[in-house]
Amino acid sequence: MSVKAYQRKLDVENGRVELSHGAGGRAMAQLISGLFHQAFGNEWLAGSNDQSAFDVTAGRMVMTTDGYVISPLFFPGGNIGSLAVRGTINDIAMSGARPLYLSASFIIEEGFRFSDLKTIAESMGAAACAAGVYIIAGDTKVVERGKADGLFISMTGIGLVADGLDLSADKAKVGDRVLLSGSLGDHGVAIMSKRQNVAFQTEIVSDSAALHSLAAAMVAAGGGGIRVMRDPKRGGLAAALNEIALQSELGFHLQESMIPVKPAVAATCELLGLEPIHVANEGKLVAIVAPDSADAVLAAMKAHPLGSNAADIGEAEADDHKFVQMTTDFGGRRIVDWLWGEQLPRIC
Amino acid sequence: MSVKAYQRKLDVENGRVELSHGAGGRAMAQLISGLFHQAFGNEWLAGSNDQSAFDVTAGRMVMTTDGYVISPLFFPGGNIGSLAVRGTINDIAMSGARPLYLSASFIIEEGFRFSDLKTIAESMGAAACAAGVYIIAGDTKVVERGKADGLFISMTGIGLVADGLDLSADKAKVGDRVLLSGSLGDHGVAIMSKRQNVAFQTEIVSDSAALHSLAAAMVAAGGGGIRVMRDPKRGGLAAALNEIALQSELGFHLQESMIPVKPAVAATCELLGLEPIHVANEGKLVAIVAPDSADAVLAAMKAHPLGSNAADIGEAEADDHKFVQMTTDFGGRRIVDWLWGEQLPRIC
Repeated sequence: MSVKAYQRKLDVENGRVELSHGAGGRAMAQLISGLFHQAFGNEWLAGSNDQSAFDVTAGRMVMTTDGYVISPLFFPGGNIGSLAVRGTINDIAMSGARPLYLSASFIIEEGFRFSDLKTIAESMGAAACAAGVYIIAGDTKVVERGKADGLFISMTGIGLVADGLDLSADKAKVGDRVLLSGSLGDHGVAIMSKRQNVAFQTEIVSDSAALHSLAAAMVAAGGGGIRVMRDPKRGGLAAALNEIALQSELGFHLQESMIPVKPAVAATCELLGLEPIHVANEGKLVAIVAPDSADAVLAAMKAHPLGSNAADIGEAEADDHKFVQMTTDFGGRRIVDWLWGEQLPRIC
Repeated sequence: MSVKAYQRKLDVENGRVELSHGAGGRAMAQLISGLFHQAFGNEWLAGSNDQSAFDVTAGRMVMTTDGYVISPLFFPGGNIGSLAVRGTINDIAMSGARPLYLSASFIIEEGFRFSDLKTIAESMGAAACAAGVYIIAGDTKVVERGKADGLFISMTGIGLVADGLDLSADKAKVGDRVLLSGSLGDHGVAIMSKRQNVAFQTEIVSDSAALHSLAAAMVAAGGGGIRVMRDPKRGGLAAALNEIALQSELGFHLQESMIPVKPAVAATCELLGLEPIHVANEGKLVAIVAPDSADAVLAAMKAHPLGSNAADIGEAEADDHKFVQMTTDFGGRRIVDWLWGEQLPRIC
């Protein structure tokens, strides 16, 4: 006689999440072992403890966390699960650290389909595996129908910083170059198009990607010359550069003509009254680099598949107002402020 | 001229969270610096990077994560914020590790009061400070009205395990004692009473507490004799012991008469048709301890303010069925299964 013999099988194909799957009882144990452990498969989760242990060498670690509330959950180029894993990896990688371990907290609305949850969990497992990181801790809560919107995921990651590296938003210096890894706005416009049912001949796909190997190649090429790296998500490149300007107490001067934007993205932005520089990205990074390292770093970016369209888009300049300014395609110079209000809610 | 001069002031007293506060722009930056940084105040958050760095010595670390979706958000003995911090500290402490750093991901419903958010954030800061841990990373997302239920918090923690310590759910051995740190069911019954407006002469207060110093005292007294520690939350002591039984491939035999339950909690449980052994706790732990260390560990528990009602409630026994059994107050012996269904939704 086995305890397992008493259990109702998890009907992944047709079943839905019930409140009991978040109650800490047998149903939850079944959901976790039958769905999440299979998707994330690693030795840590199999231990069924409330925490997972791992060995560290002495050094500098980083920790980062992000909530993912994107709507819709599935979009061209990914889903909430792959987005969460890659986004967390990127936040770690932007410090020059090697991503090591992730944790995932699921808040699920009652009635959510097991089949969707399985698809999402499997893309999380695949995205983690592709980047050589492990999801070693997790939690599942279920709330009543109408008290959440399908699925929210909060993801935390830790990583190990290479010796001597110390990238930070307050380290930019006047004269530094601004290097961008590729075209702006793909993620935001892909989500918006999907949400508004705006269709084009060419489907716009999210740029969702894990940037750790690109970042590592840049660090290898530029070493101490790299002052700051950021992946411009919510708020776009405008918010990322304004934050660095504030922290480093200087201004930035960009050349609009140098900023890559895909034609379909530019067209959609014009249609929707958006500017690509304010639109979210999920697979791009901007680096502030000392002038004498800029060429080497840019070359390393262009040599990487995720940086083939990298460009030097401007420089840091002295500015008591800490403004981000841009010389436009028409030759004028204007301030690129970060937005106050809401442009694209629930973009990540 | 200062950029700050343009900003609308954050009206913490009367204001409410808007979608713009999760959009990555100026409003979000203001919420984070004006409310969260003040409440959590530490050097890491001031850096405004997407990740926080810290030095580690070589050794064994643990990582844990939990989502908090408790309803109501405020209850006798705490609120969602203090609960999240203490709950995460406890998950770390149950491995015998010293809690070090926490991260917090907030998912907020549009329209949530700033004043409530401030109260919650301040109790998080206070609970972290009291335990000597730091909230070094955070994230804020806002979803539209009706797409969440006020506030959800996901919290992740990491800690450092003392050399040579390796507690795990699969380490219990036949003959081990089962030590419980205090009375069962306080948290679950406090929440249920508040939700159902069940009032008693004596108010039932959640036992929400950080158990790291109790756990440390036990480890100091029992060392290698402690096999497993668990804080029995959702699913209660029944779920915790059943999970250990499964992992360690043995059974447990408890003495109901030895299990402390407060009279008001016992009365409410009877009224609501619940059993204290299935009800959630937020400030209790159960330890499986080798017989020759049990007396020393129990003495250390009783000497600690959070363990003054600690008791030896039973033992691990050989059982191919991996059942948890209990000799009841009436002398019969029955199986304590973990529940399948939902008893008290959104208890944590």
